[in-house]
Amino acid sequence: MDIRACLFDVFGTVVDWRMSVSRDLEAFAKQKGIAGIDWLEFAVEWRKLYQPSMDEVRSGRRAFTILDVLHRESLVKLVARYGIKGLSEADVDYMNRAWHRLDPWPDVVAGLTRLKKKFVIAPCSNGNIALMVNMAKRAGLPWDCVLGAETARAYKPMPDAYLASCRQLGLAPANVLMVAAHNHDLKAAKAQGLNTAFVARPKEHGPGQTTDLAADPACVDLPAADFVELAAKLGG
Amino acid sequence: MDIRACLFDVFGTVVDWRMSVSRDLEAFAKQKGIAGIDWLEFAVEWRKLYQPSMDEVRSGRRAFTILDVLHRESLVKLVARYGIKGLSEADVDYMNRAWHRLDPWPDVVAGLTRLKKKFVIAPCSNGNIALMVNMAKRAGLPWDCVLGAETARAYKPMPDAYLASCRQLGLAPANVLMVAAHNHDLKAAKAQGLNTAFVARPKEHGPGQTTDLAADPACVDLPAADFVELAAKLGG
Repeated sequence: MDIRACLFDVFGTVVDWRMSVSRDLEAFAKQKGIAGIDWLEFAVEWRKLYQPSMDEVRSGRRAFTILDVLHRESLVKLVARYGIKGLSEADVDYMNRAWHRLDPWPDVVAGLTRLKKKFVIAPCSNGNIALMVNMAKRAGLPWDCVLGAETARAYKPMPDAYLASCRQLGLAPANVLMVAAHNHDLKAAKAQGLNTAFVARPKEHGPGQTTDLAADPACVDLPAADFVELAAKLGG
Repeated sequence: MDIRACLFDVFGTVVDWRMSVSRDLEAFAKQKGIAGIDWLEFAVEWRKLYQPSMDEVRSGRRAFTILDVLHRESLVKLVARYGIKGLSEADVDYMNRAWHRLDPWPDVVAGLTRLKKKFVIAPCSNGNIALMVNMAKRAGLPWDCVLGAETARAYKPMPDAYLASCRQLGLAPANVLMVAAHNHDLKAAKAQGLNTAFVARPKEHGPGQTTDLAADPACVDLPAADFVELAAKLGG
């Protein structure tokens, strides 16, 4: 492998969206006097609307639309379903930006800092640029640049999401490593000629998680326990 | 002014393209045994083809094409004009990437490091993503993300180059500061509602420079001697 750049899936791989979104919304609800909602369940329900919302764009039924907009549409549906009353537009905007305030897994900043010394590092996420920039700023993620769905104008796992990111770095897919905690993401990257690394995140979906507990050898070149071990395995 | 992000012109404002390109090509020529070329003049001639090459895209006569490609086409013309023989395709690629190896002005890294603590900082350059990433990596420019012509798919001073960059950060133009050493760039940014800061680079074009020696008060909100003074004036 002649790796020049590492691209990272973000939701689940870099950050713990489930605990972060629920904690963020719970704090907001407390401040607003909204009671009786299970915010962990709410976060999981919100995430369930994620793939269907992007499918509208992937299928071509809808022009490319950034994730902040899709997230907000899903949030509005959930607010109605949960019967939450009295939110202003600014409140909904604030809640929507919970996705900009996600906390990284404990190994992430140390691992990325090591990897950055040897490689170009960038997210290749379905999150939009502002979401990634605000998250990185808050969490101290030292990206060299922000790539992904918005720069590619294609949502993973569409081939263009990976290929445009390589092209924008001026690199062949063979010189790029895609890092994710999800085998389906790595399978799609591998199909486009990228190298792949799997980092297990067995608590992404909480206790009792049954998916993505181990690398699928059919699509993973490099399994690693966390980002620090990944850096060590890559000689960084 | 309620500034949340600072966007930067790069060629001339952040880096000294004239001295960097000429030094880089001179070293390459020495190594290859190419003699008798004035590389300072060559760099200036190369730069003279910059605006005309982008005009093809701005006018709509040509689909959006990244600057690395435009730079290379101009280089091929100049190599022929100067009668330089015996270069391989890899040699021409290497010479073309002289634009990825530009040195910053002495105040830049210190100024950006201070500004980054308070603001999102990003290039808004006509250079493409790979060019900006490789330059930043080599020179230690601590960008939060890379914006500009390639992400906007429009070359400055077209309105979309500024507006798409604001939109991608999720900010109104009124919350963004465009920083440049060129009044025409700031005039175009101002026309789209961005705030503007002028940093003089009186040696960009060498001794005897006659243009852009001072801020044009008609389009500049904030003049500064260099990036460190800019950071101080912005309270960073």
